[in-house]
Amino acid sequence: MQLNSETTPNVENRESNMELIKLMKDRRSIRKYKSTPVSLEKVYQILEAGRYAPSGANLQPWIYIVVTEESVKERIREECERVERKFHRKAPERFKAWLKEQGITPEKRFLTEAPILVVVAAYTKAPYWLESTWISIAYILLSVQSQGLGTVTYTPSETSFLNDILGLPSDYRPVAILPIGYPAEAPSPSTRPRKPLEQIVHLNRYGNKLELDEKCEDWVRVRVNP
Amino acid sequence: MQLNSETTPNVENRESNMELIKLMKDRRSIRKYKSTPVSLEKVYQILEAGRYAPSGANLQPWIYIVVTEESVKERIREECERVERKFHRKAPERFKAWLKEQGITPEKRFLTEAPILVVVAAYTKAPYWLESTWISIAYILLSVQSQGLGTVTYTPSETSFLNDILGLPSDYRPVAILPIGYPAEAPSPSTRPRKPLEQIVHLNRYGNKLELDEKCEDWVRVRVNP
Repeated sequence: MQLNSETTPNVENRESNMELIKLMKDRRSIRKYKSTPVSLEKVYQILEAGRYAPSGANLQPWIYIVVTEESVKERIREECERVERKFHRKAPERFKAWLKEQGITPEKRFLTEAPILVVVAAYTKAPYWLESTWISIAYILLSVQSQGLGTVTYTPSETSFLNDILGLPSDYRPVAILPIGYPAEAPSPSTRPRKPLEQIVHLNRYGNKLELDEKCEDWVRVRVNP
Repeated sequence: MQLNSETTPNVENRESNMELIKLMKDRRSIRKYKSTPVSLEKVYQILEAGRYAPSGANLQPWIYIVVTEESVKERIREECERVERKFHRKAPERFKAWLKEQGITPEKRFLTEAPILVVVAAYTKAPYWLESTWISIAYILLSVQSQGLGTVTYTPSETSFLNDILGLPSDYRPVAILPIGYPAEAPSPSTRPRKPLEQIVHLNRYGNKLELDEKCEDWVRVRVNP
């Protein structure tokens, strides 16, 4: 197989892509937050990103409930920890060991420590509501990062209590809770290593792997295995 | 309610966020492609973005099958059109009318016209495999855009034939097909308008809407309804 040659090598595009990839690469999930307040203006600027996600038939099934009231955050945390305790209790022993190993406990301090929670919910009668809403969430994750703030996507193992607490109609499903705040931890991206492209890219058929030439740092060169 | 004041107004973050939002805002789904080839290097650069998505327990359930062979693209298109024809035939009359109104037909020319197809599949035994994979797809969408290329997320109404064509083990589920190529159409973002934030953001409880002050173009100011 022969490599196609670029018809229009575009330096500007390449630089813009490098910046985008840097944003993605540097992002880490944040679970510890400073008490520093985050303005609603900033939250709106972040959510502005989410609304530009593409969606099935452009129906934009997502809504964002911005939670700033302490009492609401406390109720959410209480209920989340209740369902997570239940989930952990019912888990098979091997899974329990795995959860422990991953450091996953029912305690969700970030739900009250972060100054803001954004509950993302979706209108379940729209086509591809879950898929579209996760694109919207991905856009929000990057927007949070570009603002120098932190977040983590957290989906409780049950979610219907959020409909009660937030007065959400039953045709809306809570999809994730995103705490938003200034990070009080700085986990290194290197401690969450990603699989190399060689491992996850296949050419024309599963199992037909490519080899990457790593001499070129920025611009990946490709060679097909003999 | 009082607006919190920013403790650290950061001009750099704000600009980086504006650029990111511009990328998201300008992006449109592309269904017509030039025959101009796209190099595998460029495809790899694009997929580099996808692998940085966060995932449940960092299990990175996604794989990418890069399809460059004409015969494979043709088989994929044939099977996709077959399942879409079946889907359209079985659809209730009202839904049929809606599909027609949306311009959605069983014909999927982009599957052979785009020089490259990326079939994104996910390992369904990983927790949150679908959610994580859609974050990965969102990252790829933005990377495609920043490279000056076009794509659209297309999920056929049935997907198991892709396992056969691509030799995908049964514990991998095809999640979306992303054609990748230079756009042969330039749809305006204004023809796919997004709902305003006022309509989709709620404060502390569903139905408690906010009003946006639109005097300030870049930086959204917020006022709580009396």
